[in-house]
Amino acid sequence: MQYVDNSISYKPVHLLQPGHADYLEELITRLETRTAVIGIIGLGYVGLPLMLRYANAGFKVTGFDIDARKVAMLNGGQSYIEHVTSRSIADARNRGFEATTDFSAASEADALIICVPTPLNAYREPDLSFIFGTVDALVPHMRKGQIMSLESTTYPGTTTEELRPRLEARGFEVGRDVFLVFSPEREDPGNQQFKTRSIPKVCGGDTPACCKAGIALYGSAIDQVVPVSSTRAAELTKLLENIHRAVNIGLVNEMKIIADRMQIDIYEVINAAATKPFGFTPYYPGPGLGGHCIPIDPFYLTWKARQYGLHTRFIELAGEINNDMPYWVVNKVINALNDRGLPLRGSKILVLGIAYKKNVDDMRESPSVTLMELLRERGAEVSYSDPHVPVFPPMREHHFDLSSIELTRESISSHDVLLLATNHSDFDYAFIQKHAKLIVDTRGVYRDSYPNVVKS
Amino acid sequence: MQYVDNSISYKPVHLLQPGHADYLEELITRLETRTAVIGIIGLGYVGLPLMLRYANAGFKVTGFDIDARKVAMLNGGQSYIEHVTSRSIADARNRGFEATTDFSAASEADALIICVPTPLNAYREPDLSFIFGTVDALVPHMRKGQIMSLESTTYPGTTTEELRPRLEARGFEVGRDVFLVFSPEREDPGNQQFKTRSIPKVCGGDTPACCKAGIALYGSAIDQVVPVSSTRAAELTKLLENIHRAVNIGLVNEMKIIADRMQIDIYEVINAAATKPFGFTPYYPGPGLGGHCIPIDPFYLTWKARQYGLHTRFIELAGEINNDMPYWVVNKVINALNDRGLPLRGSKILVLGIAYKKNVDDMRESPSVTLMELLRERGAEVSYSDPHVPVFPPMREHHFDLSSIELTRESISSHDVLLLATNHSDFDYAFIQKHAKLIVDTRGVYRDSYPNVVKS
Repeated sequence: MQYVDNSISYKPVHLLQPGHADYLEELITRLETRTAVIGIIGLGYVGLPLMLRYANAGFKVTGFDIDARKVAMLNGGQSYIEHVTSRSIADARNRGFEATTDFSAASEADALIICVPTPLNAYREPDLSFIFGTVDALVPHMRKGQIMSLESTTYPGTTTEELRPRLEARGFEVGRDVFLVFSPEREDPGNQQFKTRSIPKVCGGDTPACCKAGIALYGSAIDQVVPVSSTRAAELTKLLENIHRAVNIGLVNEMKIIADRMQIDIYEVINAAATKPFGFTPYYPGPGLGGHCIPIDPFYLTWKARQYGLHTRFIELAGEINNDMPYWVVNKVINALNDRGLPLRGSKILVLGIAYKKNVDDMRESPSVTLMELLRERGAEVSYSDPHVPVFPPMREHHFDLSSIELTRESISSHDVLLLATNHSDFDYAFIQKHAKLIVDTRGVYRDSYPNVVKS
Repeated sequence: MQYVDNSISYKPVHLLQPGHADYLEELITRLETRTAVIGIIGLGYVGLPLMLRYANAGFKVTGFDIDARKVAMLNGGQSYIEHVTSRSIADARNRGFEATTDFSAASEADALIICVPTPLNAYREPDLSFIFGTVDALVPHMRKGQIMSLESTTYPGTTTEELRPRLEARGFEVGRDVFLVFSPEREDPGNQQFKTRSIPKVCGGDTPACCKAGIALYGSAIDQVVPVSSTRAAELTKLLENIHRAVNIGLVNEMKIIADRMQIDIYEVINAAATKPFGFTPYYPGPGLGGHCIPIDPFYLTWKARQYGLHTRFIELAGEINNDMPYWVVNKVINALNDRGLPLRGSKILVLGIAYKKNVDDMRESPSVTLMELLRERGAEVSYSDPHVPVFPPMREHHFDLSSIELTRESISSHDVLLLATNHSDFDYAFIQKHAKLIVDTRGVYRDSYPNVVKS
């Protein structure tokens, strides 16, 4: 993971921009006057909305991605994310947005904002290969006066311990020649109330000058920038947000198991507790954690804490309970079938909703996929219906050769169990309930009692 | 704990009110017309504000307590709780409020609202002796047409499994002759924004008629009543609220320990995370859990869950981490002194704030007391300053023969360490910082860096 100096491809730094005294001032001026070029690396769920925001704020934006297919679509004015319209991409194109796979174009940008994935490897350790690959591809093309911002969620220390040395190895003095910040993304796909622009942006600089540059960068496109004292504080801020969420979901999943055993309706209890006007925030149980953030990010802290001799007990416990939820749900299905004298093996199960949360098409870490695999392993005939996912997409670790089934009277009644895994608003729940033999509801959609609904 | 039938003292139920067909209707009418008499049993942090609310709503209220001293004070128009004014007690007296130790007066009340403590015993098991003692004292004096409401926090099942049989043993049919509900108290002493009246009141009835009676009871004095389907749902609602809080405080205490080791300021991180307008609620670390609810209530569920073969893992973990915080703080004190070449033994420690939270005089389960004991055990000379607690009160398990020390230049500078345990608004923090040799701050009061402040 060390930076490889392939110096044949570029000139030494000192020859590029000799004698420039105050890069910070010039950068800030270019950002304030919208004459800066914004480079965004990684055009996915985070980078694409951010590109649109900068384009709408009046900047020329260059988008970088290693996926030539995505680049071609964007340059053709097409989107590949459901909640980002092709119209908005075409608009951005008209404002000068261009996508490219050619990282040498980085030299033309004033800002390089990195929005690449930070997954876990098979041993639940941070996989920073996308970040390192990106930075190593960018650094040869960097010049003085640029700002680099990392938005990918990661452990405290990444920016200073990993990115800074890569810039220094190129001969830059960080905080004078180039500027380095960490500013965590807070995208929430499907959130109608808060958008990229209105979600405050935390930003920590590697030096005070870096922080100033970061405030100028984000202040030119985001309503509120929240500066913090270091990149490490900014990195931990994002982790705390997602740890808070993972733990609260873990807690309410544990409470669901207890309430279920006590034959108390956990949704009634949560909604009653939510009437307390202070000191309580409702979280809801589900079939397991999904999405790219909540199931993954907390373990970045777990990994880093080990270096300090510490064990992140709440994160581990939340992980155990949340990871166990699909198994718990499968047992609910087995018991519900068993109560009707049926085994799971050979039963026809229709999974309703395979996106990881409602009203999106995002399947990353979706618990529905785990459910489908567990059910298939146990001999069930599994199919699915999801208005947002017409065809089961290719996934790194999962394979289903399936298309979404249309929900008709016949398709509903021909399955032994409808497993309600994602509560999309598009589903006609009354119609489903009317025609289903048996529904296992993991989302608390059915509040009343029905003979054919099992709450899970 | 069985109900003892001392039937000499009262007539059989059927002779008291023969032939009354609809007690529910009459009770509701009496509540709606403010002609009902409200009996409140237990005149402490919960019962006293509730008494004031009913008195202000136009009801005659009778207060019951086994403490003759409290009863005498109230009847003399005096309060014994800092945030309840004597003026308000005197006003209630003028509206007909009377306190008594004589439980036979219960027969004159239409409603019996039980607000007694539910502590844990030495083995961390529920101690319902106050509830049982109260109910057993009331039942002989009850008559048909009354409603009994339990407000004390307890495990799901208490009302139906323990109170209902006690009423039935007296010959009442619950839901016809008398009405039984559980409606958890939500008092938050010191909360300026929400008061008894404006905090929605959850209420679950033992039968549908009981629930109706409960809605009428609380609807006559509280702005919003939230009915739930059972007493057990209402019992679990209160526990969920406090478990949520205990777990979130436990989580942030664990995060504090990690951030401290990484030399990141956890308060900066929490405040930055709190700028996220959705999905995050800030909780703050401290020297340990205090008060009568959060450290205690969750274990009521732990105890009950065992009966169902379940283990409440989040509650246990939160308990472990929160209980460990005073030890962590004491180590901070020891290390801070050690950095200055001093041992704890023989050092003079002034604890700032011994109430369990800021701006109140309530010392129940205060972590300050634990801190004082740990420091004393280790040979420190311990004193305290708390504007809300002039004299260290008699406590069941703790003894300190101390009075609050006035904070002067001399008293501050004569101590080796000022241990800031409760962040009362009345403290002059700049003055303290100016004159202290060393401050160990467990509340994040000092946001900037000072050579004499150690963040803990």
